[in-house]
Amino acid sequence: MAPSGQKKKGILERLDAGEVVIGDGGFVFALEKRGYVKAGPWTPEAAAEHPEAVRQLHREFLRAGANVMQTFTFYASDDKLENRGNVQRFTGQQINEAACDLAREVAEEGDALVAGGVSQTPSFLSCKSENDVKQIFKKQLDVFVQKNVDFLIAEYFEHVEEAEWAVQVLKSTGKPVAATLCIGPEGDLNGISPGECAVRLVKAGAQIVGVNCHFDPEMCVKTVRMMKEGVEKAGLKAHYMSQPLAYHTPDCNRQGFIDLPEFPFSLEPRILSRWDMQKYAREAYDAGIRYIGGCCGFEPYHVRALAEELTAERGFLPAGSDKHGLWGAELKMHTKPWVRARARRDYWEKLKPASGRPYCPAFSMPDSWGVTKGHADLMQQKEATTQDQLKELFTKQKF
Amino acid sequence: MAPSGQKKKGILERLDAGEVVIGDGGFVFALEKRGYVKAGPWTPEAAAEHPEAVRQLHREFLRAGANVMQTFTFYASDDKLENRGNVQRFTGQQINEAACDLAREVAEEGDALVAGGVSQTPSFLSCKSENDVKQIFKKQLDVFVQKNVDFLIAEYFEHVEEAEWAVQVLKSTGKPVAATLCIGPEGDLNGISPGECAVRLVKAGAQIVGVNCHFDPEMCVKTVRMMKEGVEKAGLKAHYMSQPLAYHTPDCNRQGFIDLPEFPFSLEPRILSRWDMQKYAREAYDAGIRYIGGCCGFEPYHVRALAEELTAERGFLPAGSDKHGLWGAELKMHTKPWVRARARRDYWEKLKPASGRPYCPAFSMPDSWGVTKGHADLMQQKEATTQDQLKELFTKQKF
Amino acid sequence: MAPSGQKKKGILERLDAGEVVIGDGGFVFALEKRGYVKAGPWTPEAAAEHPEAVRQLHREFLRAGANVMQTFTFYASDDKLENRGNVQRFTGQQINEAACDLAREVAEEGDALVAGGVSQTPSFLSCKSENDVKQIFKKQLDVFVQKNVDFLIAEYFEHVEEAEWAVQVLKSTGKPVAATLCIGPEGDLNGISPGECAVRLVKAGAQIVGVNCHFDPEMCVKTVRMMKEGVEKAGLKAHYMSQPLAYHTPDCNRQGFIDLPEFPFSLEPRILSRWDMQKYAREAYDAGIRYIGGCCGFEPYHVRALAEELTAERGFLPAGSDKHGLWGAELKMHTKPWVRARARRDYWEKLKPASGRPYCPAFSMPDSWGVTKGHADLMQQKEATTQDQLKELFTKQKF
Amino acid sequence: MAPSGQKKKGILERLDAGEVVIGDGGFVFALEKRGYVKAGPWTPEAAAEHPEAVRQLHREFLRAGANVMQTFTFYASDDKLENRGNVQRFTGQQINEAACDLAREVAEEGDALVAGGVSQTPSFLSCKSENDVKQIFKKQLDVFVQKNVDFLIAEYFEHVEEAEWAVQVLKSTGKPVAATLCIGPEGDLNGISPGECAVRLVKAGAQIVGVNCHFDPEMCVKTVRMMKEGVEKAGLKAHYMSQPLAYHTPDCNRQGFIDLPEFPFSLEPRILSRWDMQKYAREAYDAGIRYIGGCCGFEPYHVRALAEELTAERGFLPAGSDKHGLWGAELKMHTKPWVRARARRDYWEKLKPASGRPYCPAFSMPDSWGVTKGHADLMQQKEATTQDQLKELFTKQKF
Repeated sequence: MAPSGQKKKGILERLDAGEVVIGDGGFVFALEKRGYVKAGPWTPEAAAEHPEAVRQLHREFLRAGANVMQTFTFYASDDKLENRGNVQRFTGQQINEAACDLAREVAEEGDALVAGGVSQTPSFLSCKSENDVKQIFKKQLDVFVQKNVDFLIAEYFEHVEEAEWAVQVLKSTGKPVAATLCIGPEGDLNGISPGECAVRLVKAGAQIVGVNCHFDPEMCVKTVRMMKEGVEKAGLKAHYMSQPLAYHTPDCNRQGFIDLPEFPFSLEPRILSRWDMQKYAREAYDAGIRYIGGCCGFEPYHVRALAEELTAERGFLPAGSDKHGLWGAELKMHTKPWVRARARRDYWEKLKPASGRPYCPAFSMPDSWGVTKGHADLMQQKEATTQDQLKELFTKQKF
Repeated sequence: MAPSGQKKKGILERLDAGEVVIGDGGFVFALEKRGYVKAGPWTPEAAAEHPEAVRQLHREFLRAGANVMQTFTFYASDDKLENRGNVQRFTGQQINEAACDLAREVAEEGDALVAGGVSQTPSFLSCKSENDVKQIFKKQLDVFVQKNVDFLIAEYFEHVEEAEWAVQVLKSTGKPVAATLCIGPEGDLNGISPGECAVRLVKAGAQIVGVNCHFDPEMCVKTVRMMKEGVEKAGLKAHYMSQPLAYHTPDCNRQGFIDLPEFPFSLEPRILSRWDMQKYAREAYDAGIRYIGGCCGFEPYHVRALAEELTAERGFLPAGSDKHGLWGAELKMHTKPWVRARARRDYWEKLKPASGRPYCPAFSMPDSWGVTKGHADLMQQKEATTQDQLKELFTKQKF
Repeated sequence: MAPSGQKKKGILERLDAGEVVIGDGGFVFALEKRGYVKAGPWTPEAAAEHPEAVRQLHREFLRAGANVMQTFTFYASDDKLENRGNVQRFTGQQINEAACDLAREVAEEGDALVAGGVSQTPSFLSCKSENDVKQIFKKQLDVFVQKNVDFLIAEYFEHVEEAEWAVQVLKSTGKPVAATLCIGPEGDLNGISPGECAVRLVKAGAQIVGVNCHFDPEMCVKTVRMMKEGVEKAGLKAHYMSQPLAYHTPDCNRQGFIDLPEFPFSLEPRILSRWDMQKYAREAYDAGIRYIGGCCGFEPYHVRALAEELTAERGFLPAGSDKHGLWGAELKMHTKPWVRARARRDYWEKLKPASGRPYCPAFSMPDSWGVTKGHADLMQQKEATTQDQLKELFTKQKF
Repeated sequence: MAPSGQKKKGILERLDAGEVVIGDGGFVFALEKRGYVKAGPWTPEAAAEHPEAVRQLHREFLRAGANVMQTFTFYASDDKLENRGNVQRFTGQQINEAACDLAREVAEEGDALVAGGVSQTPSFLSCKSENDVKQIFKKQLDVFVQKNVDFLIAEYFEHVEEAEWAVQVLKSTGKPVAATLCIGPEGDLNGISPGECAVRLVKAGAQIVGVNCHFDPEMCVKTVRMMKEGVEKAGLKAHYMSQPLAYHTPDCNRQGFIDLPEFPFSLEPRILSRWDMQKYAREAYDAGIRYIGGCCGFEPYHVRALAEELTAERGFLPAGSDKHGLWGAELKMHTKPWVRARARRDYWEKLKPASGRPYCPAFSMPDSWGVTKGHADLMQQKEATTQDQLKELFTKQKF
């Protein structure tokens, strides 16, 4: 933890020095389960309405080892709040300011940086011009500049083109910029490969590139590996980042978990265990990813598992590990010998946990125009018009 | 919500009036995931160490509709804290007082009562005398009396005999007493049937009887139904209560989820969805249970689902429902037509959610001397000596 | 094998001497897959139409170790053949005579006995009188007496009352009589327990009692165990017999596999392996069952597995084992070391075979008025009128 | 069926005319279950030892609609019979002659052709010269020429190079030649793509190309589709053929089902239903495949399902369909209304059949050097030396 009064190292200093940066988890899903966010609209009014709940979640991620506090400002521009049909007691400005203050307050309690973020816009899909879309990003930046966040993230973009525009705008602040797409190995919704996406983001000015949301850790690490190969083949340099779901999604199509029938209210059987998370942390690290965090579904203990897996690389355990024996060590104190026998790495790594749901399958068929991985070839034909369909939808109805 | 200054109705007044009382969820599992409780020892020092985390969880359960705040005092007698091998910065006394204050503070923010509880003791299994065991319960009562909790719960007992002793001690305070065993339809660890257990607890003085922990809602409701039949057959009267796991456990043996190989760190695929919880609330209500709450695995949104299912019976929604459209109603605003199509009760009730884990089975084989439900006959022979074995274990090693 | 010319030991001689008698498998399912029986009507015209196919299946069961050749005469009374709506090139008489001749022909090729059987009748369910129903059985007996089968089996009865009538008729021939119900642990469709059913069958004159069809081996052995307890408690004596399905049916209701949605054309994922069969043979033997055979789903290799498991008890291997190394021994010759490693008992006993069907569940919900085992209590109420409903159905429409 | 006395159309005449040719199923697996073939060695001595069993299986496939009777001569060269360590009562010559006679005898009973086949040799993997390997194929041809089979099949080759050699030898007879590899979409064991493999086989002289064994229908159809694309891109012409497993194998690696832990004795849960087979027939047809048959796991009813699905295209039903109502039509006569409700296409197509095995998973991890599809990238590195390893194994030990 940085001694008080001492300036913290910035995100690029850390990554340039080869440090592992642990990200936090997604706020909307965690706070939905706690009762402060409405699934569907996913708006962040809790930052102003229930600051104690947002502050507490920040603290838990910090204790778990997170080096980044992302401001809880997802979908908080005034037009989106309106669009979402919520009667608000707070303006977007109030919410965003509150979110920045909360992130900063908790970041100061430990060795964490504050990051502000922008995401894809309905405007892009409604075929607004580059200039119009960039205006939206610029407006969102005001609060991040005013509150002086440490760096910026353009995240959750399905089209690399819009992400490039976002990066260009974010770069104008002079702050470090990370960019993550919500894509899998098949590339963005226009079919642009992960490798090419990454090259374009780096050329647009992002120092950190990667993916977030939509897919499980295995698929995200695979996608970032393809990004890295693309960037290196192009003779460029970048840092790499992944913030996957905490849900197993081997059966999803290129639209990710949104198209799974379980989204968003029956995803429970897919939740990763802490041991799954350690596996993810190791695979991400081995793939050259150094900014390792999470998105929807992550709870504080998931982030702690990332930090614990990389204890040797980081040189220390997170504060939260004072309540967690490694690999179930604390079970050694259990009365029953067969429970004590579970206090070892080998046991938890090999366990194939049962679902307790004999009437449920392992895979679901994604809805609608998407299809399963097993039919990837069919998919390519069928989804050729994906973006056109999306555009049509977006122009006909409010987001 | 009770107008400030006005005296709240007590637990028995509510139940006698036919009201539904929503319980809270278990604290140790929820706070373990948040980073404040160590799995294995499961001690509650967080009440003193990190009061903001405990207060926040109380608030979330309150918002979710809980009418009871159980003090977070599980396993907090000094001897247990010592036994658990933790170096403590706080005495059991300090922890218990803090826990009572937190529960009261949040209860006053809404229409909730405060309940203090005692649980089974290592002393009973070590063959200590009735007097010795009762002394332990008496000592634990001090703080509840001093802090004036609204009622008392004897919970998590595997042997009805010890639970009777606890009830007798708790009765001495003059406060209402509830008693819940952690047993399934096969009865307590001595093979005493649920019906007989319930009769003995009522005769010992409990006004509310039921089960908590160890089994999933389906099995718990079934067990309480057997308890009710026993009580009614004996010509007695009682109120009924269930606080099950939030995990599906159709494959466990009579020791419950402890013996499942996934306990306690890979239970994720078994977590109930909010729709599973609504089903539980309905089945519990139909079985005549009016105190409906939860135990390990419950998150605030699980409790909210109980309250929402019983909206008509209770006459109002919980505060937390301002962030939750019933049966996914808020999905009607989604861009994709096939996601909008999920905004209906029928969809979520019929969905058989996939695990995303094709290498994992539906059932596990419980460890050790326990066996699967399918071999219940074998089990009866094999487990006849269960308590003797347990006693042997307990005398040989610390708990 | 009995030297030619020497009289074979009868069924009772064998059982009285403590020998294991291996039964054959069901013909209708095996011949349906081979193209000679129509699923639904399940009539045995193949005995006359395609004798080579029926002869071949008898031979395969004989080679596999079967000591009994059941005549392929299921549902072959003239009225049933008519009822089944088939235009027949052969009379029931012709079919039944051909079936007896084929069974005898192959039985003479080895150490096997010929058994003729009768099953439940539509007449019973249509409330015909005891006399009417017995007339039907008597008529069926003619061919068995004329062809001089070695013993008789009353099999596939859902109501013990009708089975008693059948036994009484069969006894009149002076031949040994076996009687098997198609019931599970919950008893016959009138709710009469397995123990009581067995007692009544023994009192009616059956020397061998047990169950066949409808349930998997685990459930059948459990049911016969209950029958044996009943008979012994009543101070009676009998031999015990089981001829279960070769399908795993833990999820079926008391109507057995008929009510499973997969019946009869998608049962493939439930088929038992040879190792499952060895487990069944051992459990049946340990339960005191000495006539161990099979019903629907059994293929010759399943019967061979029964004989192989009981090699020590029987003192010899079946002829068919010249093409089968025990516990996969022949894999020791495989090129790949990891396939060679499968040549051991431990490997196959522990293997939990995957389905290759990630979109399919482990359990199905049985159709209609039946319910799952997990809701057995509900079932008792709901099925109280089962027979009345059945009768209503049978009187309204042809069988 | 061809009127007796009239010359049947040859395989190429049929395919050139656009007819669908239905193949038979694999004999070794079917006869293993019937007790006539030893798993592991898989040698075909039954043709001489138990001709009635082989004849009967031919007849069943013929009745099911098969237009080809493949001689049961797999692994029947003298050296292989010796290698397999069996004491044989018959020479390879005797076995092969018997096999040809049986195939011809049954083919003459209907509209079927006789095909003789050769498969990959241990000699190739032991690095024998092209000449040596070709000598082995030539020797096997003698009996096929002498018995005048209608056409020849080079099948079950893992390396296209060896298959080319086989095709060159078979072509020398002047008979039509088909060639099928046991490969999946990733190509042969040297990594040569399906498209390139097919081009090489066509250039070597095969008029029909495709795949057989090792993979499930879905994967086989996909692979043949790639072959067809390759052939067409090269400006060549060919007919296409697939003879897949009757087992679902989505989880296998490039070595196919051999590496699955269930091979060969616990594959039951993976067996395809008749409806799965109809789906396969349709997909194969839609992919331009006109020779549609099966391999290991196929039973006669599986072949019948292929013929039934393509009734409209072929203009007639197979003989065996006189015992099979389409889409379960015969269930309309069932007593129970819910079973009658199963008599429709929609029901069986949508059904996701349960396994009845809650302790078993959907996928297995293939053994040894192979890995799951999900790790295809890893696999490419790891398997680079596959053939070298194989060679090493083969030279060290007998096959």
